[in-house]
Amino acid sequence: MTIVLKDAFWNRYTELIRNEMIPYQWDVLHDQADIFIDKERDDAAIPSEKSHAIENFNIAAGNKEGNHYGWLFQDSDVYKWLESAANSYALHPDDKLLSMIDEVVSLIEDAQEEDGYLSTYYQIEAPELRFRRLFESHELYCAGHLIEAAVAHYKATGSKRLIKVSEKFVECIQASFGPEKGKVNGADGHQEIELALIKLYEVTGNTDYVDLSKWFLEIRGTDPHFYSKQLEENKDRGLNQGHIPHINTAYHQAHKPIYEQEEAVGHAVRLVYIAATMAEVAAIHQDEKLFKTAQRLWENIITKRFYITGAIGSTVHGEAFTFDYDLPNDTMYCETCASIGLLFFAQAMLKNKIDVEYAEVMERTLYNTIISGMALDGKHFFYVNPLEVNPLASSSDPGKSHVKATRPSWFGCACCPPNIARTLTSLNKYVSTSYENNLYLHLFMDVEGTVKVGGQSIDLSQKVNMKEQGVVEITIKNVKEPLTIYLRLPSWGDNFHITGKYSGPVINENGYVSIEVTEDTQFRLTFDMPVLMHQAHPLVRDNRGKVAIQRGPFVYCLEEEDNGEDLHLLSLTERPVVTEMSDHSLGDYVGLKAKGKRAIIDDSWNNQLYQALGKESKEETFEEVDLNFIPYHLWANRSKGEMMVWLKTDNIEY
Amino acid sequence: MTIVLKDAFWNRYTELIRNEMIPYQWDVLHDQADIFIDKERDDAAIPSEKSHAIENFNIAAGNKEGNHYGWLFQDSDVYKWLESAANSYALHPDDKLLSMIDEVVSLIEDAQEEDGYLSTYYQIEAPELRFRRLFESHELYCAGHLIEAAVAHYKATGSKRLIKVSEKFVECIQASFGPEKGKVNGADGHQEIELALIKLYEVTGNTDYVDLSKWFLEIRGTDPHFYSKQLEENKDRGLNQGHIPHINTAYHQAHKPIYEQEEAVGHAVRLVYIAATMAEVAAIHQDEKLFKTAQRLWENIITKRFYITGAIGSTVHGEAFTFDYDLPNDTMYCETCASIGLLFFAQAMLKNKIDVEYAEVMERTLYNTIISGMALDGKHFFYVNPLEVNPLASSSDPGKSHVKATRPSWFGCACCPPNIARTLTSLNKYVSTSYENNLYLHLFMDVEGTVKVGGQSIDLSQKVNMKEQGVVEITIKNVKEPLTIYLRLPSWGDNFHITGKYSGPVINENGYVSIEVTEDTQFRLTFDMPVLMHQAHPLVRDNRGKVAIQRGPFVYCLEEEDNGEDLHLLSLTERPVVTEMSDHSLGDYVGLKAKGKRAIIDDSWNNQLYQALGKESKEETFEEVDLNFIPYHLWANRSKGEMMVWLKTDNIEY
Repeated sequence: MTIVLKDAFWNRYTELIRNEMIPYQWDVLHDQADIFIDKERDDAAIPSEKSHAIENFNIAAGNKEGNHYGWLFQDSDVYKWLESAANSYALHPDDKLLSMIDEVVSLIEDAQEEDGYLSTYYQIEAPELRFRRLFESHELYCAGHLIEAAVAHYKATGSKRLIKVSEKFVECIQASFGPEKGKVNGADGHQEIELALIKLYEVTGNTDYVDLSKWFLEIRGTDPHFYSKQLEENKDRGLNQGHIPHINTAYHQAHKPIYEQEEAVGHAVRLVYIAATMAEVAAIHQDEKLFKTAQRLWENIITKRFYITGAIGSTVHGEAFTFDYDLPNDTMYCETCASIGLLFFAQAMLKNKIDVEYAEVMERTLYNTIISGMALDGKHFFYVNPLEVNPLASSSDPGKSHVKATRPSWFGCACCPPNIARTLTSLNKYVSTSYENNLYLHLFMDVEGTVKVGGQSIDLSQKVNMKEQGVVEITIKNVKEPLTIYLRLPSWGDNFHITGKYSGPVINENGYVSIEVTEDTQFRLTFDMPVLMHQAHPLVRDNRGKVAIQRGPFVYCLEEEDNGEDLHLLSLTERPVVTEMSDHSLGDYVGLKAKGKRAIIDDSWNNQLYQALGKESKEETFEEVDLNFIPYHLWANRSKGEMMVWLKTDNIEY
Repeated sequence: MTIVLKDAFWNRYTELIRNEMIPYQWDVLHDQADIFIDKERDDAAIPSEKSHAIENFNIAAGNKEGNHYGWLFQDSDVYKWLESAANSYALHPDDKLLSMIDEVVSLIEDAQEEDGYLSTYYQIEAPELRFRRLFESHELYCAGHLIEAAVAHYKATGSKRLIKVSEKFVECIQASFGPEKGKVNGADGHQEIELALIKLYEVTGNTDYVDLSKWFLEIRGTDPHFYSKQLEENKDRGLNQGHIPHINTAYHQAHKPIYEQEEAVGHAVRLVYIAATMAEVAAIHQDEKLFKTAQRLWENIITKRFYITGAIGSTVHGEAFTFDYDLPNDTMYCETCASIGLLFFAQAMLKNKIDVEYAEVMERTLYNTIISGMALDGKHFFYVNPLEVNPLASSSDPGKSHVKATRPSWFGCACCPPNIARTLTSLNKYVSTSYENNLYLHLFMDVEGTVKVGGQSIDLSQKVNMKEQGVVEITIKNVKEPLTIYLRLPSWGDNFHITGKYSGPVINENGYVSIEVTEDTQFRLTFDMPVLMHQAHPLVRDNRGKVAIQRGPFVYCLEEEDNGEDLHLLSLTERPVVTEMSDHSLGDYVGLKAKGKRAIIDDSWNNQLYQALGKESKEETFEEVDLNFIPYHLWANRSKGEMMVWLKTDNIEY
């Protein structure tokens, strides 16, 4: 299946990644960029002087002398860069990029141990602790990213060099892990190898990798004391200076076996990575029990722990889920990587069951939180994607120090930027899936190429316009046998019409309309894109009396630049309408405008913090104002200021 | 001046302190109580196994062998217990209590070094670091509490034993601190000695103590690198294993000289302790510059950083102030001790200038946050006094782990409980002040006794009833010369009437009504006590569209026990009215009741987190409900549940 994105909206991002981000990250990884590395939050323990990631490999390979610097998982920055670079190379072959890729591949080969092991921190600093402090070692997490890079590299270049490195590392892992005496009978503290092994299986066909992935899935949480026992057993190896830290196993989703986990808890990225793997293995094995487990977590997230921007993770503490309906807008974490993981999870769910809800979550994450993670210059990134920001609070309230009002240029823990890059350079794989002689079209992006449907390869072209109206034009060529095409009817659309040559249509329970095609054809799906004012479930305390605006796949927000300061004094008094906008700094986008009110701060408040209603204070007065909305993902690309997604309403008619 | 509280409301607390808290704390300090020591929040570094405070003194005195356990400031628990016990003894002389007091006094005498130094941590663990890591050592903080205990002990018993210990310690401090070479030229990281030295001056008349206090006030912040330099200089003494921590000097109000400090920043307790001292020294020296400095901080707090419950400290991070109008109701700190410090500050301001605003702040802190700090059983205590609590959030959101839904029995850092005890056992000193032949009556508490006014001592009796109406009956006897009595007209009262024998009244700018008295007399001030619905300044984001209810000095709240769960679904639709209540578990109190609405969670929300208005969701429906309010300080004395002070309103008439 080789469909290619021809979408101006998305290719702007892949171009930024190719022209700005990949070279920039290259410089960062080589400690050549003149950058300020920001801290994610006020925490002295966060390394932030430099990346040192390539240098760590050079030291591990014996090319240089020195110490490891950075996080235990610093290697993964290199692997994620490599995966992005390979994906980008596949889109735009380029000799210079290839030689950069080759240089890194060689360095990785050189750094790998004879027996396949590869983790620069442990190789340089603590070889005696190999696989012995899994709760935080990230050795298999890094192995996972190595494998994902290898798969991308192989697909882009045809070279198996990194696949060989990966398979050798997996042999080392197979030899080291398992229930046998002397082996490690547990899983890494950060899920990732599980997902990567599925990808390695997909390119090698070796089902051992699926088995190993499933073993890691199922061993997790069977012994909730595994991590602390491991530390206890290896105390004499200079581990943590003999101090055994308290381990919050729920953070690692290792508090109980996966089959007993009812709710999405702990570190959000870890949770969606493992949940995605459950769905992947379920699809490969047709494993109903695993699928049900994944579904239970999915439902808990989507119906109770999910932000309207496609984000997850309600607290910075452990970058974690909290509890049902707890969705604060200004203290949350909403990590870019967590939404990327949720995208993986949704796609894996689609492999088990076609349902519009999975596609809609993919879309919501992509068009909102994931691209909010990257500035329009391709050089500044958000880890944390708030739904409400007051820059003064970010700078003056330590509890909001993680909520940045502008995108920093790089982070001490640089997981998000390369994760965005590898994801946006491989969007083609999310657009469609096929099963038997059915072709499902999930996302409204311009694509062209060949897809396999049942026994035949057909040529597919999808052209989308989502400005005034939704218009999706699909051209199918090279049809030799009858096939069924399923078009997603987006929940945010209305008045759907299909015109063209086909039989049907049938509107299916799963939210797709299916049409029967027996020959080359062209058809067109059109729909209205009304401005939606979303309410949140009444138990979401922070959103009471407020609405969030959406049109098409885009959630909207108010920025101080367009609406003045103190956004909390504003309320919406009518449904917003489309005002096509073009701001030279934001590019083309569809803006929205509405009438609203702004509370006036009366003079009686001078030097008063509280006033008794009817005694000291009068009824509040308001002025009518225009409210100007921009798509959420565009925020923080102009002046530093307040931003707000959920907005109060006042006597609104709808 | 010896007026005695005869107030049933307040004496209930002093009885609890005498009968429950003092014996209980005695057991805790001696590690005899069968208690669970709670942690203030999720932090492994907080010592919580036991108190060990008396044991530390025994070890320092050489009576026992062993190591110090607990905080660097563990000694202050003993001193604060002693101060409370002495205060309580003054109210109710009791041989058993006196022998407990004597035992502790002897232990303190025994533990003091020859040269006057006394700090069990440094004596036992690190004598070479004496006064060498002032940013966190709390040596002078503990010295301050020793002095305050000594003053209380002397006043209660007439014994100067602890005054001698204190003066000897102060000599040691005078010999160790100052601008001279070889001396320490800076102030303790936790203010307290400053305030204590004023009290020592008050009982000894030694003005050197005022000078030393002022020196500590003024040296602070003159070298913002003082603390880190001290650590650097003493690195070779095994300090912090050579690691120099980052010091946030604003936390200690040591970022600039006090005269340049424009806003209340940093740790809230530290700020109010030092501000109170500024006002005390200003009053003694008639120092306008110091008073202006104190006034500036006062105004910043009261007009921009002050909770309606009399609490301060908007964040748990550093237990600190944040920025203007940032007053979150559910993540704040609002430490009991900070309100106690604010009470001290207000009282000290009154010594410079009589203004009703200082008295009102004293009252607001006392009737709300300070007594909220203690359960009705006298054995459970709040550190943190939230204005909104959801127990599920406290247990499931680590960002709210400090916001307890029930009062724990004791804390690892036990500063608040004994601070409440020493304050509530000395309330008589806040009721009135006199200046020349003027007597000012600030608080509406039942008192009896003799007060000095100008050259004469008069007999004063004040009897208060604040149930249906405010009634304050004042009887003055033994009048020999004319005097002026100033009665506070509370901002929360209305329709003031004075009846009795006097000339006047004159309503003064400072908010007091003054009457002239030339002979023994009796008069009565009556006023209405309407239910007030307070609005917050529009820039207080968290209180938009909400009101807080107050009647008399009491702020009210809703509890789940009376109003069901999900308090955020409620809104107020009319002004509450008085319903006198008597709940056998809460005692007598004036309850309030009002009509309100509760939002109904429609079935359409089943498994939906977001719905588009007008498309999927209907207009919200409500049911009419009765809302039942109790005084804020009584919350969390029944079942564990939600609590809320600021409540949404809906089309309210006023």
